[in-house]
Amino acid sequence: MAGGGDDAAAARNKMVVLKRHVTGFPMEEDMEVVVGAVGLRVPAGSSTPAVLVKNLYLSCDPWMRGRMSKHDEGATAPAPDFVIGETMENYGVGKVIDSTHPEFKSGDLVWGMSGWEEYTLVYQPESLIKINHTELPLSYYTGVLGMTGLTAYAGVMEVGRPKRGDFVFVSAASGAVGQVAGQLAKIAGCYVVGSAGSDEKVDLLKTKFGFDDAFNYKSETDFAAALKRCLPDGIDIYFDNVGGATLDAALLHMRHGGRVVVCGMISQYNLEEPDGLRNMLCIIPKAVRVEGFNVAGYFHMYSRFEEEMARYIKEGKIAVVEDVVEGIESAPVALVGLFSGRNLGKQLVALARE
Amino acid sequence: MAGGGDDAAAARNKMVVLKRHVTGFPMEEDMEVVVGAVGLRVPAGSSTPAVLVKNLYLSCDPWMRGRMSKHDEGATAPAPDFVIGETMENYGVGKVIDSTHPEFKSGDLVWGMSGWEEYTLVYQPESLIKINHTELPLSYYTGVLGMTGLTAYAGVMEVGRPKRGDFVFVSAASGAVGQVAGQLAKIAGCYVVGSAGSDEKVDLLKTKFGFDDAFNYKSETDFAAALKRCLPDGIDIYFDNVGGATLDAALLHMRHGGRVVVCGMISQYNLEEPDGLRNMLCIIPKAVRVEGFNVAGYFHMYSRFEEEMARYIKEGKIAVVEDVVEGIESAPVALVGLFSGRNLGKQLVALARE
Repeated sequence: MAGGGDDAAAARNKMVVLKRHVTGFPMEEDMEVVVGAVGLRVPAGSSTPAVLVKNLYLSCDPWMRGRMSKHDEGATAPAPDFVIGETMENYGVGKVIDSTHPEFKSGDLVWGMSGWEEYTLVYQPESLIKINHTELPLSYYTGVLGMTGLTAYAGVMEVGRPKRGDFVFVSAASGAVGQVAGQLAKIAGCYVVGSAGSDEKVDLLKTKFGFDDAFNYKSETDFAAALKRCLPDGIDIYFDNVGGATLDAALLHMRHGGRVVVCGMISQYNLEEPDGLRNMLCIIPKAVRVEGFNVAGYFHMYSRFEEEMARYIKEGKIAVVEDVVEGIESAPVALVGLFSGRNLGKQLVALARE
Repeated sequence: MAGGGDDAAAARNKMVVLKRHVTGFPMEEDMEVVVGAVGLRVPAGSSTPAVLVKNLYLSCDPWMRGRMSKHDEGATAPAPDFVIGETMENYGVGKVIDSTHPEFKSGDLVWGMSGWEEYTLVYQPESLIKINHTELPLSYYTGVLGMTGLTAYAGVMEVGRPKRGDFVFVSAASGAVGQVAGQLAKIAGCYVVGSAGSDEKVDLLKTKFGFDDAFNYKSETDFAAALKRCLPDGIDIYFDNVGGATLDAALLHMRHGGRVVVCGMISQYNLEEPDGLRNMLCIIPKAVRVEGFNVAGYFHMYSRFEEEMARYIKEGKIAVVEDVVEGIESAPVALVGLFSGRNLGKQLVALARE
């Protein structure tokens, strides 16, 4: 595959670039797929070691929305804004096809931050993680064995700290993080209820993921009543992926000493002004902890997590549902679909199988 | 003083009763001082041991506001609603004048939950705590050595967990809890900024309580700018006594890994509908913990706290400012004054000196 000497063979490299910064809901037209070319070797004479990765699977995650906005200087943002005209990026799974870094060699399967493109030249390969369990579907490393799985694991185990018998509520429960969070809480011996946005998803929660109960929040007229019906004794741990009205209702329904694990607030990402939360007062008499976290603080536990999660998957204790679209041309619409809940399970884009 | 045999001498007992349940700001007219009589011995033939306490100091605390409302059944309330026509209650300091409980004897000085009256017959004396440091002003056991002091101690040390060099912000900082919280954070080696509602209070923070900086929130047009001016590098610990707009502004100004110790939300207690908090989203990228707590969960550490706090007071490391009114007739107006910030320091009512 490699070209001789410094003259590398070239390949087509399709990439998704940001066309304009986004306000409100993102649209397919905010992105553009452009065609470039890439040399199939790390350029000779590079001053720092680098790794050329052929991207196999790209992950679509809600947190990317934050990077599509233009933030004011000094504003709290999860990561730098995407630059107009430049390739977007997110976690993905790839195969090393050339490397000048001693820790990586051609043929290695890795996951980590990568461009939304067919090939990515990674100049900071320390951010790439080698895939140990190649006997499992590689795509799992965009989800259950990758960033979203680690997010669920850290949120449930480190932030929520479940005790056997705890009552747990998970919103966006069939999504990439929610499905893993709920199943981990089940493994920890909790009673787990999920909310989702369609009857099909609710069915998935009960039949595939083993939730004790679930409801379709879109068909409930009274959200608080739905919580009371499914969790009459209240909530010990609320794993929040959506924020807004769901969080406000859950706050009222927390038990003494409860924990709200604030992982995401997808209902808020596209609003010009966020909804006002009115029920925070009740965290005082109930001694409730509301804790925001992000996965960046938990990569030190990745190895332990990978082994534990791979074992759960093999033992059938963690089921996985993925929503896979094919080809990089499908990436923008797949990403946009997250915000209307069109995906069923973990949303990812397959670019190549090897 | 005691009557012979079962026939106890009687004394006048003035008491503050709730006249009507409160919505919005409480008013003096919501309460009434009525005159009754009390036997000066625990009634003979009582089925459970009891303690008759002569109240010396009553504490006025914002949390009483919650008990003056009529809550819907099942609503989250800090404690049972006060009953119309019955004596209100709160923490206070008193002297045992008769006891049929083996652990208390006439002459003991105690603090704990007591009626808003001159004499209280306590049927659950386990809730009373004997006062060890009688060499310090007894009134301190309504505040710095009592419930509000323990609240500040638990909030700062157990919930906030300060590290040397942390940037700490305390709202309602000259109040009963705030003044102790800020000084404890100083002892822990933090840089401490307080907000208060008058220039006189701000002056007190800087000169008497040793805060590093302070501002009058009523004269600031831009609250966020005031925070930025006083804490240009952000906030590690926000000790929240007020909630509302102050909390919302502080959330935006938290540092990564910061802690919001939610002790009280006095700005919200008198609103029909609470203000909406709009900045909770930023706790995710900044991994901020927002933790409600109440002192009820921390009485197990009271002995340790009492010794430590008494030592700080004697060493001059903790200064105390009290706002004392005289006589039970003054109690209603003193309580109401808390909600307009009329008090300067810990508000209490002196009924008798011994």
